[in-house]
Amino acid sequence: MEIKDIIATIKKEKPNVKSVYYVGCGASQAELYPAKYFLEANAKALRIALYTANEFNYATPKGLNEDAIVVTCSLGGTTPETVAASKLAMEKGAAVIAITNNGESPLAKACHYLVVHNWEGSYSAKMDKMNKALLIAVEILNQYEGFETYDAMVNGCNSIYGIIDEAVKSVLPEAKAFADSYKDDEVIYVMSSGATHKVAYSFSICLLMEMQWMNSGSFHDGEFFHGPFEITDKNVPFILLMNDGRTRAMDSRALTFLERFDAKTTVIDAKDFGLGSLLPGVAEYFSPMVISAVLRIYAEQLAIVRNHPLTKRRYMWKLEY
Amino acid sequence: MEIKDIIATIKKEKPNVKSVYYVGCGASQAELYPAKYFLEANAKALRIALYTANEFNYATPKGLNEDAIVVTCSLGGTTPETVAASKLAMEKGAAVIAITNNGESPLAKACHYLVVHNWEGSYSAKMDKMNKALLIAVEILNQYEGFETYDAMVNGCNSIYGIIDEAVKSVLPEAKAFADSYKDDEVIYVMSSGATHKVAYSFSICLLMEMQWMNSGSFHDGEFFHGPFEITDKNVPFILLMNDGRTRAMDSRALTFLERFDAKTTVIDAKDFGLGSLLPGVAEYFSPMVISAVLRIYAEQLAIVRNHPLTKRRYMWKLEY
Repeated sequence: MEIKDIIATIKKEKPNVKSVYYVGCGASQAELYPAKYFLEANAKALRIALYTANEFNYATPKGLNEDAIVVTCSLGGTTPETVAASKLAMEKGAAVIAITNNGESPLAKACHYLVVHNWEGSYSAKMDKMNKALLIAVEILNQYEGFETYDAMVNGCNSIYGIIDEAVKSVLPEAKAFADSYKDDEVIYVMSSGATHKVAYSFSICLLMEMQWMNSGSFHDGEFFHGPFEITDKNVPFILLMNDGRTRAMDSRALTFLERFDAKTTVIDAKDFGLGSLLPGVAEYFSPMVISAVLRIYAEQLAIVRNHPLTKRRYMWKLEY
Repeated sequence: MEIKDIIATIKKEKPNVKSVYYVGCGASQAELYPAKYFLEANAKALRIALYTANEFNYATPKGLNEDAIVVTCSLGGTTPETVAASKLAMEKGAAVIAITNNGESPLAKACHYLVVHNWEGSYSAKMDKMNKALLIAVEILNQYEGFETYDAMVNGCNSIYGIIDEAVKSVLPEAKAFADSYKDDEVIYVMSSGATHKVAYSFSICLLMEMQWMNSGSFHDGEFFHGPFEITDKNVPFILLMNDGRTRAMDSRALTFLERFDAKTTVIDAKDFGLGSLLPGVAEYFSPMVISAVLRIYAEQLAIVRNHPLTKRRYMWKLEY
């Protein structure tokens, strides 16, 4: 079923939805963030929250009931906590939409509505998960509350794949330079703001810590000046993800500070890929997708120079834990 | 005015409040988190969100209007972003409650209702900010929606100071051992769950990065198994903050993993201070206060052995940025 039709079907059954809960783990939680961010910023009546799955399972919010929509997400559809959360949400009477790459997975079977996303084949395919989550949010907002920028958002959701395919063509030299420069660093900090905030988080915990066993921390760059910036010094390594949108002033302020004190700074800037002119008025919500896709190439180059494939794990998928 | 009376006054003027926004920066944002967590978990109709102040200023949520309560927080009451957010919220017609230690500060003048919290004098005084924010949430919930555990929560808010004063008496030996053991570490990870999630964050970005210039990262311990745990190895330094409440299973799972692989692990456990028996049914919401107070002693000991006072800064309060 098309996403638009899924929401229309839910609305027929549940015309008075109050709460929208997003539930996932790790990268999948982070990839729900742009949708959560968009909806929290633009909804006038809907209640919005984002949970790591076991937080949702153990301390279940009282708003989880028949007036809720729950969007769960897991790439392979096997994350036990997320499958449990999806089942719990169904038991509580919520309408449950699961987003997964595997339409036969346990998660795909623990939902009312299944959204299968692409993954393999291109950098833009890897952003299909984040984009479909965002489109679900756009449809929820428009159908339940109305949304004046609906057409621009839907156009963005349709156009973003081509924009990403174009963006990733040019970044290999910068990605190689990044990998050479950061490969031996003892810790790498990643920061951003706006809808891209959790891209910084997922690059830190998944690409660097999980897939490269490199030390890392992440935080919102608006928070940078309220603590973390005291770590800044010549050659301390940072990655700054700059949005094309309203929160860019925070990104720029952080960049000015990093440059002033000669930190080792790598910038991935949505503006470099023309997002603002391609998607006027809504570029900020698509910044995380372009930046994530570009970051994937940076991670691949880091994996090559460090001789540590992105697929290499010591615990994940290997042990019971 | 008493907090209970503040909310009663707001309710008279605004009987149909829809949204409660929490706004602060750095530690003050983190100290609003238990209140936000409590309200998000227990409210059936109210919409809840927490913002770093400039995110609120630049990408102001559409729900900020005359049907909103905004709670802003800044220790000294001078944080420019938070003062701006407080003014913005007043302009938009929201009821604005400011929490600050300085009743004459710019923030104290940019609000409808002022809540002055204690700070100096004791470890429990330092938790007054977090506790008053929580009490505001309890009153909002009870007066707007009703809340069956209201009495237990109010009792907790009243009793927690004595519980903290007692808790901190016994921890100096462990704090000294922690300081000796972690003083030369290149990076320290901090994690927790539930209402204590952001205590891990603030210890990481404020106590370690800001006040000790030590590298650090933090994440939710339910997320640990979805990325960060691949960094675990013999002697990799972690601080695990364990809650006395529903999310403890996540904390315990992380502890089991850290011990299994001989990570360098320091645990601050709310259960060690009898929280569950002292505050039956609501201990989870007070875990962050006891743990934060204890952590303060750990930070003080770290500062002593590293000969780096907690007051020492190179940028904050010294430069324009």
